Amino acid sequence: MDISLIKQLAVIAGEENISTNQADIDLHASDESHHPPSPAEVVVWGRSGQQIAEVLKFANAHRIPVTPWGVGTGLEGNSIPVYGGILLSLEKMTRIIEIHADDFQVTVEPGIGHKDLNAQLARYGLFFPPDPGANATIGGMLANNAAGIRTVKYGASKDNVLQMEVALADGRLIRVGSRSIKQASGYDLLHLFVGSEGTLGIITQATLKLVPVPSLMSAVVASFATVEDAVEAVVAVRGSGLDPAALEFIDAEHCRLLHEAEGVDLLPYPTLFMEFHAIHESTLTQGISMVKELCEDLGAIRIQGTTDHSERLKLWRARHHSLEILKRAMPGYKFFVMDVAVPISQYPALINYVEELRAQFNVPVTMIGHAGDGNVHVEFPYQNQAEFERALECDRLIVKRAIELGGTATGEHGVGIGKAEFMQQEHGAALDVMRAIKQTLDPNGILNPGKIFPEAIKPGT
Amino acid sequence: MDISLIKQLAVIAGEENISTNQADIDLHASDESHHPPSPAEVVVWGRSGQQIAEVLKFANAHRIPVTPWGVGTGLEGNSIPVYGGILLSLEKMTRIIEIHADDFQVTVEPGIGHKDLNAQLARYGLFFPPDPGANATIGGMLANNAAGIRTVKYGASKDNVLQMEVALADGRLIRVGSRSIKQASGYDLLHLFVGSEGTLGIITQATLKLVPVPSLMSAVVASFATVEDAVEAVVAVRGSGLDPAALEFIDAEHCRLLHEAEGVDLLPYPTLFMEFHAIHESTLTQGISMVKELCEDLGAIRIQGTTDHSERLKLWRARHHSLEILKRAMPGYKFFVMDVAVPISQYPALINYVEELRAQFNVPVTMIGHAGDGNVHVEFPYQNQAEFERALECDRLIVKRAIELGGTATGEHGVGIGKAEFMQQEHGAALDVMRAIKQTLDPNGILNPGKIFPEAIKPGT
Repeated sequence: MDISLIKQLAVIAGEENISTNQADIDLHASDESHHPPSPAEVVVWGRSGQQIAEVLKFANAHRIPVTPWGVGTGLEGNSIPVYGGILLSLEKMTRIIEIHADDFQVTVEPGIGHKDLNAQLARYGLFFPPDPGANATIGGMLANNAAGIRTVKYGASKDNVLQMEVALADGRLIRVGSRSIKQASGYDLLHLFVGSEGTLGIITQATLKLVPVPSLMSAVVASFATVEDAVEAVVAVRGSGLDPAALEFIDAEHCRLLHEAEGVDLLPYPTLFMEFHAIHESTLTQGISMVKELCEDLGAIRIQGTTDHSERLKLWRARHHSLEILKRAMPGYKFFVMDVAVPISQYPALINYVEELRAQFNVPVTMIGHAGDGNVHVEFPYQNQAEFERALECDRLIVKRAIELGGTATGEHGVGIGKAEFMQQEHGAALDVMRAIKQTLDPNGILNPGKIFPEAIKPGT
Repeated sequence: MDISLIKQLAVIAGEENISTNQADIDLHASDESHHPPSPAEVVVWGRSGQQIAEVLKFANAHRIPVTPWGVGTGLEGNSIPVYGGILLSLEKMTRIIEIHADDFQVTVEPGIGHKDLNAQLARYGLFFPPDPGANATIGGMLANNAAGIRTVKYGASKDNVLQMEVALADGRLIRVGSRSIKQASGYDLLHLFVGSEGTLGIITQATLKLVPVPSLMSAVVASFATVEDAVEAVVAVRGSGLDPAALEFIDAEHCRLLHEAEGVDLLPYPTLFMEFHAIHESTLTQGISMVKELCEDLGAIRIQGTTDHSERLKLWRARHHSLEILKRAMPGYKFFVMDVAVPISQYPALINYVEELRAQFNVPVTMIGHAGDGNVHVEFPYQNQAEFERALECDRLIVKRAIELGGTATGEHGVGIGKAEFMQQEHGAALDVMRAIKQTLDPNGILNPGKIFPEAIKPGT
């Protein structure tokens, strides 16, 4: 981008909303993944749907890449501006536009963090349930269909959004979806833009579904001799009608490390962490008895359960802080975390395959996962380039196996840069339909180029 | 279509899967709506994804309209072949392909009725929750994003499908979605095809999510002085965390008619019907007490509640058979039922507007609705053409008002023929995006022409 283009852009975006300072460029060149940084040429701060639409219109006319940015917590390079151009940061659009309390809805700007949003919603007794861990922005969560721990009960980001304002590559500003909960009116553009990682349009506003904050919670932690036993328990709990709010898995190796390094009270066996929500105490206690019984019948080695708040937090500590504890347990290591998901029946096959690779490649991987959703995260520690490359090789084999098992290359991190190479295997001829839609909505390829599709297409080529 | 085209089609589809008999044509010329019948030129019975893909390829080459057909229970003319050509019936594709019990999934052909499916799933203790009333086919339900009574807890059809096989206009057969519950891999084509009413592709197979059959149910029926009070109760129940499985509304006039004509035990006031599911008896009884208390606090005139099975069915009789009872109560009348949905906070405004129109136009309308979803069905009785046209005029005004209130022209019946004229008002510039996607996937306009879009486009023109 030459200086005259940047000057024109400053007029359109507003002088105060644009920067070419090296510090600003560097701050927006990498996310939390292992993908290498890549600098934009200019950072533009979005301020409104209209302003963003005008920036896109200008970028489209000049074939300038535009990469949207929330707060940089992506794990697959989803927001790295690999072809330079404009880094469009939404981080200053953090307003709550309207709380529709009687409708259990809130309309927000895309840059607000979900934790900040929930802090402000607490007084209404409502919350937005998807929780990817980090304080990701709502826009980033929608763009990547982020999910997290409580998806088994409350669904992913896509299940908790009703309406969005979206700026298109050619500068049109459209509204998709409806504030009506039920919608059967024309094509579901809402879900076409959700999960499209900013490659079809930029989300400039969203109306989210909210749910009542649960009044009571319980926790159960159960260890099993084998992954197969643990997954049988997952199926039994889901089939019981108990409606778990979380159904998490930590593998034996991870449990062993947590125990040895920090004395966390875990046995070195495949372990499930469960959470249940209720509004009556008796429902909660009956639920715990039922879960304990189910797990005992399936040969659990140890079962701990509680309805007490601080006991619950203590039991869940190992799960909530697993990666941090792991990092402390393995000083000198860097980590990357990969994401695949399979039908639950295939969970043991996937876990056992990762264990085979661990032995075969001598890579000290550990696993955590959202077992209730069939979602697995493999944590790869590495100390040098050779170990990093071996880890990447394992990573690729695991993704391929997940797809062969009827699963997906990504359950919740999105495709970004890292998973693009698997799209053909996973989607086959449907990938051509995705390409055709991309071509229809962004014919010059300016929107987040280098993501999702395996072919590297620079804008305007 | 001349005779030579029909002969070629017979070779492609199979001689036994094609008919030009008047009886077959007539059987597939109208649905359950008020829209006039329109005959196809030939009926083709789909038998497999591959065969359907080949039929589409042929039709596309010759610019022949193809209108998909499930079992004809549509309420907006969604399956009426308005431009003739091929009526593609899926009614013989009724196989359950595979039950994935441990995954709580089933893969089916599109022609199976949801009631037939659930009858076969009962032995597994699982069911597919969306229930539009009639024994609609799974393919039709997905194509129109059908919903029904239990959506407030279990979601609409779109929320209960994971993967589909879809035949495209040009003869490609693609697979969209994944059997993995969590999906963040590329564009959400699954939800683009769901609700597209066969205008973008034909669903030839679907993998559905299933849930455990609830072991215990309760029912509460409560009458209120005003619609506002009733809707306050809806908000209170949803906000309580009680997670109702149904939250239905019958208006005062409908209640009066049901009581006067058949002695149904209802007061002539706005009335809510609620259902709750649980796995422990105490949860159910505590839930009923809580609901009764909430409704009392909001000034309910009468509240009846039960956990007893036959008592529950008796209480719910008025809701489950409301239209049949209404028809018996008004002999000599024909009926059509329209569908709109608004944010719940706007429910009283919509109901009150319909009541104004009832007085102003002297049209004896009644209302039922899925209040928990903000969905209203207005039932129009008419005896002659003049009354029918007055009803249609009211219908149009109600749709326009629903959209003005932030709602949608259709919550669960789909757009079909009847709602096409409101798409511009509801979607604005987003309608052009829908048009562009239609053009991309079906450039010759052969798939279910005359539906969704307000402009009448004949294939190939």
